[in-house]
Amino acid sequence: MEKKKTTIILFSGDYDKAMAAYIIANGAAAYDHEVVIFHTFWGLNALRKDENIEVKKTFMEKMLGKMMPRGADKMGLSKMHFAGMGPKMIKDVMKKHNAMTLPQLIDMAQEQDVKLIACTMTMDLLGLRQEELLEKIEYAGVAAYLADAEDGNVNLFI
Amino acid sequence: MEKKKTTIILFSGDYDKAMAAYIIANGAAAYDHEVVIFHTFWGLNALRKDENIEVKKTFMEKMLGKMMPRGADKMGLSKMHFAGMGPKMIKDVMKKHNAMTLPQLIDMAQEQDVKLIACTMTMDLLGLRQEELLEKIEYAGVAAYLADAEDGNVNLFI
Amino acid sequence: MEKKKTTIILFSGDYDKAMAAYIIANGAAAYDHEVVIFHTFWGLNALRKDENIEVKKTFMEKMLGKMMPRGADKMGLSKMHFAGMGPKMIKDVMKKHNAMTLPQLIDMAQEQDVKLIACTMTMDLLGLRQEELLEKIEYAGVAAYLADAEDGNVNLFI
Repeated sequence: MEKKKTTIILFSGDYDKAMAAYIIANGAAAYDHEVVIFHTFWGLNALRKDENIEVKKTFMEKMLGKMMPRGADKMGLSKMHFAGMGPKMIKDVMKKHNAMTLPQLIDMAQEQDVKLIACTMTMDLLGLRQEELLEKIEYAGVAAYLADAEDGNVNLFI
Repeated sequence: MEKKKTTIILFSGDYDKAMAAYIIANGAAAYDHEVVIFHTFWGLNALRKDENIEVKKTFMEKMLGKMMPRGADKMGLSKMHFAGMGPKMIKDVMKKHNAMTLPQLIDMAQEQDVKLIACTMTMDLLGLRQEELLEKIEYAGVAAYLADAEDGNVNLFI
Repeated sequence: MEKKKTTIILFSGDYDKAMAAYIIANGAAAYDHEVVIFHTFWGLNALRKDENIEVKKTFMEKMLGKMMPRGADKMGLSKMHFAGMGPKMIKDVMKKHNAMTLPQLIDMAQEQDVKLIACTMTMDLLGLRQEELLEKIEYAGVAAYLADAEDGNVNLFI
């Protein structure tokens, strides 16, 4: 029997939306689905390393790089951001419940062989380089996404 | 012939997005689809009763409970919120057009046997108790969602 | 062999989300999918002509019409709006990379026979008239969307 397949486009750069994406992805992988997360636009920030990586950039690319959160842990909430108090509260609550943080969910996804793809077109636009992103990421464009999604059982845009 | 199936993850706590979710759900039910709405994160607020229910909560859970809208009617807009003026305008326009409000759309969904599920993991995180949510809700986690969605014809994340 | 099918509900009125929708749609059309974009709520603004069209409207409809962006080029960003600086930056970056603008992506979609549908129920609510929208748009409701989506291979809500 063919494996079921789940594909997720992670467009959002919000911590809570990225959490939802990775919880579904990890659930689907545990359920023996083949799983792909295609990170595009602000969703790429979830894949950034948290340290500053020295790469050659134009002035505009440097500015964009500074304006966007560097890695999953720095992302804000889609709701109740409250100048940063919201993310802190949610993270405290998560800690108390021993819930997995977003960086932990990303690690788990990689351990479960969820395919993490970075959208090369957006990387180009936003001036992000492969050196700035996590290891073991694949790089592809919308055609690759569609090839995966057209056979997907569950396809979501988050 | 097997029934077609529509599943919706309602992640958003915005009035307009929840309306879209319930309009699609009611349409699909009228179309004889089996329909499931899985409420997670801020989408859970659509299922809250509008009165204050006395339940034992930690300080943090009480604060979160107060910060989030109590029920569908209190939710804000994703766009043009304008400090509350936007929702009022949209509701006035809807009234003039005899359009159904969100609470009416939720009632209709329940009458049409749309399965309304509350995500237990998020309830736990946000400190929401079953007594605080509408009657005739089911409680489940991501595995239940995936079991529904992997056979779905239309699966949406809203 | 039957054609694969992609359907997208464009609910969002954000420039970047509409871009994502149209990039996927154009990709899918190039991939020989049958493609439908169903524009509802704020997503309708992507289809507005950029000039002011004289039509009879109530006071409220006029106000809503003025508050919403007139056409794809006027839409804001979902993130990093920064009082309009964000959209300007992104458009500068796109220009430098020779990336297609949203109006160009919409033209291309029409050339590739992507079916662009405006949701009649929302048009009614927001007081938008057919004269105010682009040429060669189709007009339909949620039932038409569902008829398309239930056979869709890729169905997204953006």
